[in-house]
Amino acid sequence: MTEMNGSIRSDIHQPIRDRWSPTVFADRPVEAEKIATLFEAARWAASSFNEQPWRFIVGVRGEDETFEDLVTCLAEGNALWARHAAFLVLTMAKTTYDLTGEVNRHAWHDVGLATGNLSIQAAAAGLAVHPMGGFSPERARELFVIPEEWEPVAMLAAGYEDEPENAPEGVTARLKSERSRHPLAELVFTGRWGESRPLT
Amino acid sequence: MTEMNGSIRSDIHQPIRDRWSPTVFADRPVEAEKIATLFEAARWAASSFNEQPWRFIVGVRGEDETFEDLVTCLAEGNALWARHAAFLVLTMAKTTYDLTGEVNRHAWHDVGLATGNLSIQAAAAGLAVHPMGGFSPERARELFVIPEEWEPVAMLAAGYEDEPENAPEGVTARLKSERSRHPLAELVFTGRWGESRPLT
Repeated sequence: MTEMNGSIRSDIHQPIRDRWSPTVFADRPVEAEKIATLFEAARWAASSFNEQPWRFIVGVRGEDETFEDLVTCLAEGNALWARHAAFLVLTMAKTTYDLTGEVNRHAWHDVGLATGNLSIQAAAAGLAVHPMGGFSPERARELFVIPEEWEPVAMLAAGYEDEPENAPEGVTARLKSERSRHPLAELVFTGRWGESRPLT
Repeated sequence: MTEMNGSIRSDIHQPIRDRWSPTVFADRPVEAEKIATLFEAARWAASSFNEQPWRFIVGVRGEDETFEDLVTCLAEGNALWARHAAFLVLTMAKTTYDLTGEVNRHAWHDVGLATGNLSIQAAAAGLAVHPMGGFSPERARELFVIPEEWEPVAMLAAGYEDEPENAPEGVTARLKSERSRHPLAELVFTGRWGESRPLT
């Protein structure tokens, strides 16, 4: 592996360039209309056999008890900053097909596609979405009475982001400039595994 | 379940509205530069612990043998139309973390996030990407010598789309107008599973 690097090509679609996962959110509610557009974007993602194996539980800070319930599902390290987000989401995947009952091996993948749409819609609307794997699926299942055939997948903290210097006490601000990724030559192959495909 | 419906809100970000999975592609190559931007977009997706558990094998029609190799991995029904795409992609997920060797339960989900970025970048560039679950992971593993800890996830057919009336012989043209999804009231909950959250 070579070093990871932090520069994104300038010709990438703007909301994809803008999207990142901050830990500092503004103390500002998000318009209900905007929240709705995020799920509308998710709804139109692709899925295997158009199964749409995604569901979402949403809690809005200061507006419902679901938000506080969702906070209690988070790993401690995430709860520290994510409890300041404007809203929290739990994503869930149905791992069998409605029609046949057979295993849907693309369920989690397709929840990823829907969450991708949601995140890009958010970026286009000036919002940030920080996906988290660190939470208790068991607690979520119990609290929200999630049926057996559905699996809790991820949680999302969302809202308007704020400057790192406005981080609440106890919150470590991530910096966008610190983002890094593997270079394309390590990711995109041709011929066989590991043979870099030249990309211009 | 109520009826699925086919209208998408008009205030959704344009490339998300435009994205769909056609079966008719134009007989026109895609600029190498544009192909590169799709993977650059994928590279910047979010992932659990920034693991970036995604790799891609790419074949370009008329340009390399990888394209023909990828066609042979497809289910017959997909090969019929997908062999006319400008390029094909195999996506792969690493199901254990590099650092700890522990299971990464978000690997497939995160490949979905990367593929979501790729698909929106494509739509913004006037291209279409049709993800497919119907292919042989075993054949792909053997042909491309994919290491054990990586799993073939999905295949993507991509290119400029063409009008349904230009479908090659034997190809059934999907119509964009026939797309449908479950209504939001069935997808977004609050309080507990199944309790629709009102969204405006």
